[in-house]
Amino acid sequence: MSDTPDSVVRTYIERHRAAFLDDLVAWLRIPSVSAQPEHADDVRRSAEWLAAKLSETGFPVAEIWPTPGAPAVFAEWPSGDPDAPTVLVYGHHDVQPAAREDGWHSDPFEPLLTDGRLYARGAADDKGQVFFHTLGVRAHLAATGRTAPAVNLKLIVEGEEESGSPHFRALVEEHAGRLAADAVIVSDTGMWSETTPTVCTGMRGVADCEITFHGPDQDIHSGSFGGAVPNPAAVAARIVAALHDEDERVTVPGFYDGVTPLTEAEREIIAELPFDEAAWLRTAKSHGTLGEAGFSTLERVWARPTAEVNGIGGGYQGPGGKTIVPASAMVKLSFRLVDGQDPDKIERAVTDWVAAQVPAGIRHEIVFGAATRPCLTPLDHPALQSVARSMSRAFDGHRIRFTREGGSGPAADLQDVLGAPVLFLGISVPSDGWHAPDEKVELELLLKGVETTAHLWGDMAETMR
Amino acid sequence: MSDTPDSVVRTYIERHRAAFLDDLVAWLRIPSVSAQPEHADDVRRSAEWLAAKLSETGFPVAEIWPTPGAPAVFAEWPSGDPDAPTVLVYGHHDVQPAAREDGWHSDPFEPLLTDGRLYARGAADDKGQVFFHTLGVRAHLAATGRTAPAVNLKLIVEGEEESGSPHFRALVEEHAGRLAADAVIVSDTGMWSETTPTVCTGMRGVADCEITFHGPDQDIHSGSFGGAVPNPAAVAARIVAALHDEDERVTVPGFYDGVTPLTEAEREIIAELPFDEAAWLRTAKSHGTLGEAGFSTLERVWARPTAEVNGIGGGYQGPGGKTIVPASAMVKLSFRLVDGQDPDKIERAVTDWVAAQVPAGIRHEIVFGAATRPCLTPLDHPALQSVARSMSRAFDGHRIRFTREGGSGPAADLQDVLGAPVLFLGISVPSDGWHAPDEKVELELLLKGVETTAHLWGDMAETMR
Repeated sequence: MSDTPDSVVRTYIERHRAAFLDDLVAWLRIPSVSAQPEHADDVRRSAEWLAAKLSETGFPVAEIWPTPGAPAVFAEWPSGDPDAPTVLVYGHHDVQPAAREDGWHSDPFEPLLTDGRLYARGAADDKGQVFFHTLGVRAHLAATGRTAPAVNLKLIVEGEEESGSPHFRALVEEHAGRLAADAVIVSDTGMWSETTPTVCTGMRGVADCEITFHGPDQDIHSGSFGGAVPNPAAVAARIVAALHDEDERVTVPGFYDGVTPLTEAEREIIAELPFDEAAWLRTAKSHGTLGEAGFSTLERVWARPTAEVNGIGGGYQGPGGKTIVPASAMVKLSFRLVDGQDPDKIERAVTDWVAAQVPAGIRHEIVFGAATRPCLTPLDHPALQSVARSMSRAFDGHRIRFTREGGSGPAADLQDVLGAPVLFLGISVPSDGWHAPDEKVELELLLKGVETTAHLWGDMAETMR
Repeated sequence: MSDTPDSVVRTYIERHRAAFLDDLVAWLRIPSVSAQPEHADDVRRSAEWLAAKLSETGFPVAEIWPTPGAPAVFAEWPSGDPDAPTVLVYGHHDVQPAAREDGWHSDPFEPLLTDGRLYARGAADDKGQVFFHTLGVRAHLAATGRTAPAVNLKLIVEGEEESGSPHFRALVEEHAGRLAADAVIVSDTGMWSETTPTVCTGMRGVADCEITFHGPDQDIHSGSFGGAVPNPAAVAARIVAALHDEDERVTVPGFYDGVTPLTEAEREIIAELPFDEAAWLRTAKSHGTLGEAGFSTLERVWARPTAEVNGIGGGYQGPGGKTIVPASAMVKLSFRLVDGQDPDKIERAVTDWVAAQVPAGIRHEIVFGAATRPCLTPLDHPALQSVARSMSRAFDGHRIRFTREGGSGPAADLQDVLGAPVLFLGISVPSDGWHAPDEKVELELLLKGVETTAHLWGDMAETMR
């Protein structure tokens, strides 16, 4: 057998795997917990460690970008080829809190390599998945004989993702010029399973609001007045109940306007995934499914917009009873949005719909939080095809399937501000225990991540030129 | 003019009015606040003061009845006539908390007599209205020349009404034999207004429950799972919303079964009252009316059963948003009941109705509190006619109208345990400020209460014989 690019890549990775893992272990030892102020220094140390390592990898530019919170790391490696497309990789170097007493079987910040797995907080979310890009780009150079990547390669690795990315959008807006790219690769997700490699093609957006309903000026006696004045807790409940029809479709007029429908091809792709409802319900810690008529569970959480009540409260909630008509009540609603929906229009539609339903005698206020837009990359997008093709090479020619993500995240800010399609390249699997004790990454999959990126930059340079 | 019974009564009252007021002032000085443990001795002192005063009035029996909480006072004055009916008067000697800094213009426990009013905590609720029975029965004897009342007169004056009468039903059950009566006169209510003397003819009952809904085993991510699993806060809201139809009628099957309908005569009586909606809304501290279609506001609160949500809670209620499907939610409901409704049947109907609406995947529990039955005395009941006639004599021949009370109270326990009709004799007016600062009683009305009872025992002895 001759030295095919694929075999060169594998040989290179095999030769450098030990040093790669040693480095990753060193990084994982830094408890960069962004949510805990006592770890602020560790988060800074983590950023500095990464910037130094990216320099060492060969990135000519590797900078710490401060924010009002924890710092981000930016690195750039120009291709040298004037026609090369520009790719921005997104990840984060902060981690979730972790303590031995949460149920860990080993110290969360003393990485443990055993049985082909690396156990540590951040092993999968997200340090492992950021770090495979270092060895990946070196393997790409080794396999192609280049001295710089085939694409203009940029990395933005933020330090506050586990704290809700409070300063990320501002950071992206501030540095929009330097972050400009033809495509964004988000390395902070996962695959369907060890045996079903997949690429995520989009995330839902989200808009949320709190509505407060005011009735009597104070709690009043339900014997003397009940049944004759409007009850704000009943109004709150009626609004929540009226949000869905008997098919669990959202009733707010205009809510579905513009929603990009699932194509038959997309529905087939979702239907072909080896979905096990009982296993999914265990993950959801739930005891039944309920959702929009005409759609499967995966379609409901990935590709359909929803309205959910996240909180409701009003009147007396203590022990026993209290016969009052409450003075006020509130509901917190959130709306997951999909491609084609505009958060601003949704907010106006919800505002009007609520106002139309509040009876005389009840005053209400509605306040929206900051919305996140949905993002979706079409299945036939060339960059997406590049990712799937590169991943398939790493996975021994295995067919790569496509998933979506029901949640919402800062990826949408990148799409939004930079105007670039967002692709998701992740090798984590559901058993990796994100945010849970005994978080781990599968070594074999981690190295397949390396291998995927080793192929990806050449493929994208070819496809997107 | 000859000495008619009415003029004898008036003369007698006029002659004894100063001493009567002195005594009442002395009683009002005792801060018998049952809700405040530091006043437990005062509540006891109040009971002892009253028992002594009733002995002095002439009651051959005047006893302190202990309870696990504050003591009650029982007094009895047999008629001596073997055919005499027995009447039990109910009242309470404990008062609401009061402090100068709540907004009183004088010390709540240093009674102030000014401009024909007596200001003090308990002046109207309920010491004044208990105390008019002492002078009333003496005036009755003076006018009739009797040495004992024309009826077997009993008084039960509890000491925990302002704390929810926690031991009253048990006390009535324990002493049911000694409390046995042909009619109960509750002296703890009021009239429509100074210029519209009224008799209350019934109170609504009440049943209440708390329903808890359990969904996921813990709060789960609404991005990953929302829209595909049942949300217990939405289920709680849907139950509350489904409680009423578009006519604000309660939808629980069987809820209205057996409800004694308002007669045309009763509706006319209610409609003739000088009801001022704006004034009523001010009292209700509300900004609109809403209730069962086809009934007026007074009919809704007095004579129609209702379902009210007293509290609702579930999910995240703190500041900002939290994108979860909550693990659980709860609602507290209460049902006001009217004559013809059985709390046990209502509880079963609600239990079945809720169960039928909870979707698969949601577990629920429903717990009912202790119910209070409704009580209603028909307009043509002879005892009620006696009360109205006696009151009319006291009010210079004024027509006496009839009201009801939307709330629920221990009166129903008396009806329930003793099997006697309950009548309400009260002279308090809405401006008396029950439970509020500057509580007062109108002296002229207080003396009309004396005068009413001075006529009542003879009339009842005549009518009910």
